[in-house]
Amino acid sequence: MQFTSGIVEQAVEALSSFPGIGKRTALRLVMYLLKRPEMEVAHLADSILQLKTELQLCEICYNVSDAVLCNVCKNPNRTEEVICVVEDFSDLMAIEATAQFKGKYHVLGGLLSPMDGVGPDDLTIGKLIERLDNSNTKEVLMALSANVEGDTTMFYLAKKLQSRPLIITCIARGISVGGEIEYADEITLGRSIAQRTEYVV
Amino acid sequence: MQFTSGIVEQAVEALSSFPGIGKRTALRLVMYLLKRPEMEVAHLADSILQLKTELQLCEICYNVSDAVLCNVCKNPNRTEEVICVVEDFSDLMAIEATAQFKGKYHVLGGLLSPMDGVGPDDLTIGKLIERLDNSNTKEVLMALSANVEGDTTMFYLAKKLQSRPLIITCIARGISVGGEIEYADEITLGRSIAQRTEYVV
Repeated sequence: MQFTSGIVEQAVEALSSFPGIGKRTALRLVMYLLKRPEMEVAHLADSILQLKTELQLCEICYNVSDAVLCNVCKNPNRTEEVICVVEDFSDLMAIEATAQFKGKYHVLGGLLSPMDGVGPDDLTIGKLIERLDNSNTKEVLMALSANVEGDTTMFYLAKKLQSRPLIITCIARGISVGGEIEYADEITLGRSIAQRTEYVV
Repeated sequence: MQFTSGIVEQAVEALSSFPGIGKRTALRLVMYLLKRPEMEVAHLADSILQLKTELQLCEICYNVSDAVLCNVCKNPNRTEEVICVVEDFSDLMAIEATAQFKGKYHVLGGLLSPMDGVGPDDLTIGKLIERLDNSNTKEVLMALSANVEGDTTMFYLAKKLQSRPLIITCIARGISVGGEIEYADEITLGRSIAQRTEYVV
């Protein structure tokens, strides 16, 4: 690209550092910004900056939070009897959107991945164990992705927690609601048969 | 989406105002930013802000510019004998990338579009005529998009300039280099036949 302005070039470079945004898309975004009122652009810049300057991690569950404690941990209607372990806050948001879970969360901040050099100390696993020592938690529900890293992390967690008087569960794997059996992959279909549930009329 | 943090929600809202970026993509971008060092995020926010606070329009050609005059107008090797009229600075950048044009530019800032209420006074057409009055320009090359608005603008410009001792040209329309005749649309193919050029061996 042949830039005639250093300021435009710098903005394109910065925006194209986003995953999935190339230089052409970044230039389109810059052109869009140039046409917006200054106040709106300032608001965008400020919102981005606040992510690093004002956002913090909840002291209890390591969810992103505007204050020392996150909205879930602050909520007196949520019980710590069940703690749902998730990889990241976007998974937490997805579960919150289902309105099916009334317990609290623990955000690991990643998954174990020896290949990428991510070990137990890089995650909040130690903090989870410390937390379990001081709470009345009865169940730990692991809601982690169904991939190698997720499986590794679940195995590690289950081993770590097995000596405690806890029920350790993981979310059900199976055919998606609305999914057709014909098109399901073998592993999912196999698991949905092995872990079949009683059909209650 | 169920946000547990107002700061994250605000950033997602702001980023999803970009064209082509929905809330899910915006959330992915926010998650990416959260993992980057503060300095990098501050640089991004600053680059965005500078687009409105420091960028200006070149006094001569209305290209975006870091200073009073843009890099093309400042360049003593560029001649004003040919002025290339473009819709926006991204078109200027595309033409600069070809390295085929050695003249100067005039950025209209849009195209005539009565349907959208864009008239001649909303563009820099008056400034172009003023500029032509005070220069030794011999040719005006119109490099505008091949759509209704582009055609309307070219017709209007040509009418406005026809009384002057100027050659008025427009970029060639035809089959793209590498394009296959079989798949070309009828209008393009028709035009490429009507405007055929002599084949020089």
